[in-house]
Amino acid sequence: MRVVVPFGVHDPVTRLDPVLSEPERRAFALRMLTDVIRAVRGAGGEPEILAEAPIDPAFGEDGAGNDPLAAVGVDVPVSVDERPLTAAVNAELAAADWGEGRKKPLAIVMADLALATPRAIDRLRTDADLVIVPGRGGGTNALLVDQPGFRVDYHGASYLDHLRTADELDATVRTVDSMRLSTDIDEPDDLVELLLHGEGVAADWLEDAGFELRIREGRVGVKRS
Amino acid sequence: MRVVVPFGVHDPVTRLDPVLSEPERRAFALRMLTDVIRAVRGAGGEPEILAEAPIDPAFGEDGAGNDPLAAVGVDVPVSVDERPLTAAVNAELAAADWGEGRKKPLAIVMADLALATPRAIDRLRTDADLVIVPGRGGGTNALLVDQPGFRVDYHGASYLDHLRTADELDATVRTVDSMRLSTDIDEPDDLVELLLHGEGVAADWLEDAGFELRIREGRVGVKRS
Repeated sequence: MRVVVPFGVHDPVTRLDPVLSEPERRAFALRMLTDVIRAVRGAGGEPEILAEAPIDPAFGEDGAGNDPLAAVGVDVPVSVDERPLTAAVNAELAAADWGEGRKKPLAIVMADLALATPRAIDRLRTDADLVIVPGRGGGTNALLVDQPGFRVDYHGASYLDHLRTADELDATVRTVDSMRLSTDIDEPDDLVELLLHGEGVAADWLEDAGFELRIREGRVGVKRS
Repeated sequence: MRVVVPFGVHDPVTRLDPVLSEPERRAFALRMLTDVIRAVRGAGGEPEILAEAPIDPAFGEDGAGNDPLAAVGVDVPVSVDERPLTAAVNAELAAADWGEGRKKPLAIVMADLALATPRAIDRLRTDADLVIVPGRGGGTNALLVDQPGFRVDYHGASYLDHLRTADELDATVRTVDSMRLSTDIDEPDDLVELLLHGEGVAADWLEDAGFELRIREGRVGVKRS
């Protein structure tokens, strides 16, 4: 299973701005990417990064001019496409080798799925033409496409749009019911989920940055020490 | 599989107060309960309602003095325990018939899991002593208990507390990774999820009440007409 992981390089995880500085958001985004790549590999997938710009040393936080991906132990092919997410992913779909009558699906998995585990990623493997994991709020967090004509549109309630597109193509569809893959970590409230359920380096990074669960009046939030 | 569904009668789904009146919240809570009961039955479970007070005609919205449960087509045993949730559920656990060396687990499933489907409920069936479904924010949305000594505590991050209790009892634990069961519908933002993924009468009720998805600047919310 070939798995493309789009990675936003300009101002990543913007909506975490209230709780993390820009250098911190870059560092955190790299850790989440690492967890996603590891989960894909753990599920026997072949991950590759689709970056919107080169992930050059300036993106890293160590100031030593090192390769940021190597610094977090990520060693996978990186391609760069500076177009918006939808156009970049559709170029991958158009260029994909769909094989000659055999299954050769292409998966697209978002880089902020820091709760992903090999077991959760493995659930993308079904025999449907389109396997889809909705994100909270109607986005599309993960897709497995085994239908040459399928194209994405990540704007708005993309989950519903993708179901509609699949229907127009008479493609069979399977929705994966996974809390881990439905939870993209892109707002402060999501950090609670990462501290509760994270098993990778993004959760470690967050704890090292001083975040911990705060339980007050029966509700659970985060605080930073 | 015996499935106890605790149902709050006093001021149900309080946190939907910004968007629904109190009579509406009662009506909506009854529809969500209906969906949960149907999902449990569809999974071959034996549902029963554990109410914090009698669900009498005053709870219903038709003003005709009819039984509110009958009005939504719910025909299951109802027991009343006026103590707080934790105490009421623990009394059920203490009184449960655990069988003589055979599996006779007791499940506790929250009444606001309006995205529950038979397939999702069926995932509670594993051979672990404790099967647990975390809710968003660290709550416990569903449990299947096959360990006579296990007791619940629903305060705070109950998911972590329940894992700890299971560990102390040397019980085997399985966490179910389900977006449908992790999403309790108790805040206005959750209504988006119900409109996107709901397949039951709660989603129908919400649409009849004038709620629909609103897509603005790429984000999805709800609006009421």
